[in-house]
Amino acid sequence: MNFQRELNKKASFVNRTLKKLLAQHKGIDTDLRKALRYTLEAPGKRIRSALVLWCCEAVSGKVKKEAQIAAAAIEMVHTYSLIHDDLPAMDNDDFRRGLPTCHKAFDEATAILAGDALLTLAFEILAKEIDDPAVSVRLIRELAQAAGPAGMVAGQMADLKAEKTKGTEKLLKYIHTNKTAKMFRGAAAMGAIAGGANKKQYETLCDYGLKIGLGFQIADDILDVAGASAHLGKTAGKDAEAAKCTYPSIFGLGKSKQIEGGLANKAVALLKSFGPKADILRQMPMALLERTR
Amino acid sequence: MNFQRELNKKASFVNRTLKKLLAQHKGIDTDLRKALRYTLEAPGKRIRSALVLWCCEAVSGKVKKEAQIAAAAIEMVHTYSLIHDDLPAMDNDDFRRGLPTCHKAFDEATAILAGDALLTLAFEILAKEIDDPAVSVRLIRELAQAAGPAGMVAGQMADLKAEKTKGTEKLLKYIHTNKTAKMFRGAAAMGAIAGGANKKQYETLCDYGLKIGLGFQIADDILDVAGASAHLGKTAGKDAEAAKCTYPSIFGLGKSKQIEGGLANKAVALLKSFGPKADILRQMPMALLERTR
Repeated sequence: MNFQRELNKKASFVNRTLKKLLAQHKGIDTDLRKALRYTLEAPGKRIRSALVLWCCEAVSGKVKKEAQIAAAAIEMVHTYSLIHDDLPAMDNDDFRRGLPTCHKAFDEATAILAGDALLTLAFEILAKEIDDPAVSVRLIRELAQAAGPAGMVAGQMADLKAEKTKGTEKLLKYIHTNKTAKMFRGAAAMGAIAGGANKKQYETLCDYGLKIGLGFQIADDILDVAGASAHLGKTAGKDAEAAKCTYPSIFGLGKSKQIEGGLANKAVALLKSFGPKADILRQMPMALLERTR
Repeated sequence: MNFQRELNKKASFVNRTLKKLLAQHKGIDTDLRKALRYTLEAPGKRIRSALVLWCCEAVSGKVKKEAQIAAAAIEMVHTYSLIHDDLPAMDNDDFRRGLPTCHKAFDEATAILAGDALLTLAFEILAKEIDDPAVSVRLIRELAQAAGPAGMVAGQMADLKAEKTKGTEKLLKYIHTNKTAKMFRGAAAMGAIAGGANKKQYETLCDYGLKIGLGFQIADDILDVAGASAHLGKTAGKDAEAAKCTYPSIFGLGKSKQIEGGLANKAVALLKSFGPKADILRQMPMALLERTR
């Protein structure tokens, strides 16, 4: 099984879903629709949404409709977070996914509203497109918790406040866990719920998601030091320039790699009770660390 | 029955609910919590949330838990929209509800994130605090539709694009319906659902909400021409300054007042089949037009 090929397959599936959901939503304002299409159709890696789909498969053996919608929803939320993160008042980035950021391609007001629209739309599709209200509500709860003021937004807030400070190990873990790992945890949780996981499976996959999410963010820090803008699809070296609190800046490169490797091993070990249906999840942690963008 | 006294009672109830919900949510980032408290505790009129509660009472005779949560949720969404609307890249306003706007009291990044957090939190509480998943999902659907890219955000987008243009009657109605009236419709819909309305009651209250929402926004346009900053709690004359497309600018003051009066009468007429439990809803349309802020 080739990880990148499997990821590409899921990315195509998610892209088709996003396109279809947007097209069938007739009432969207025309100017807004342009910005939404622009940002949603940019070549994102779709890692979080693939994680939803793979966790559903690991539990149920197939991609259920609930997972398809949940994958689209988490991708909308992730995309909104990038749009707002790139704004001049936030990270002030000009490129994302190899293209001008939303506020560069359009303007700041459009970018603010496009982000707001995607966040709202994510919850709308979870409430509209899923037949069983009990499943729908659980998915919404997971997504809101992962993305909200005790999750991703908390991480973004702390990240901004930590600029120009050396930071501590504790602060760094707080930022990375909230900003990134909780969305990975949320993705895994949503996949587990969509697949009809029992409590044990659900908790294991949540834990797995949290670990690979943290590993992913550490890898991102490392890439920002080592990578080039062309590979990243965004401006490299931004973190150092902004004097951000990162793993390499606190632990150094070697120790950072050791930590991410340890997280990957622990994540794989969690999957012992899952059968071959979870093989792709066993590959995922190392694949995320070895990526070059 | 004194409308203002009844509104104040509901406002206190909503304020207590918001305070409680925020306090019991333990995981919220500390810096973010400050901004959330600042914006949620500012003296808002709480009209949308009162509408939720009154529609629930009109149908069921009492304020149910579902309506209490829905009222808090719509107030969070309304507050988020004000925070983002006031940003420099949007309406660039320094005062709101008689206090410095969020980005003035804190900074732009905090304001962007506080808005994002409130929007997410609104869906989180609807998914967490309501016992019946079927009711929870319906409320989430209504709120997302009202606030999203085919609702409030569409109106904000069109409003910004319409700046510096004379506008047409059609465009103006599109903006006001989306930016304001759909949230009033959503509030009425949520109240109806919380109260256990039948299809006929639900549809009537939705229509009522849409009409008073449009009237409310026309009154807002008129107030902006006639009112003073001290009464408005925000900077008056902003619309004319930004050459915004408003009812007075297209129809003149007299005709605008005639239109809002007509909407109020139609809204009241819709309530014929409701008993005395809907008396406050009968007072509401005129009270909204006669307000001085």
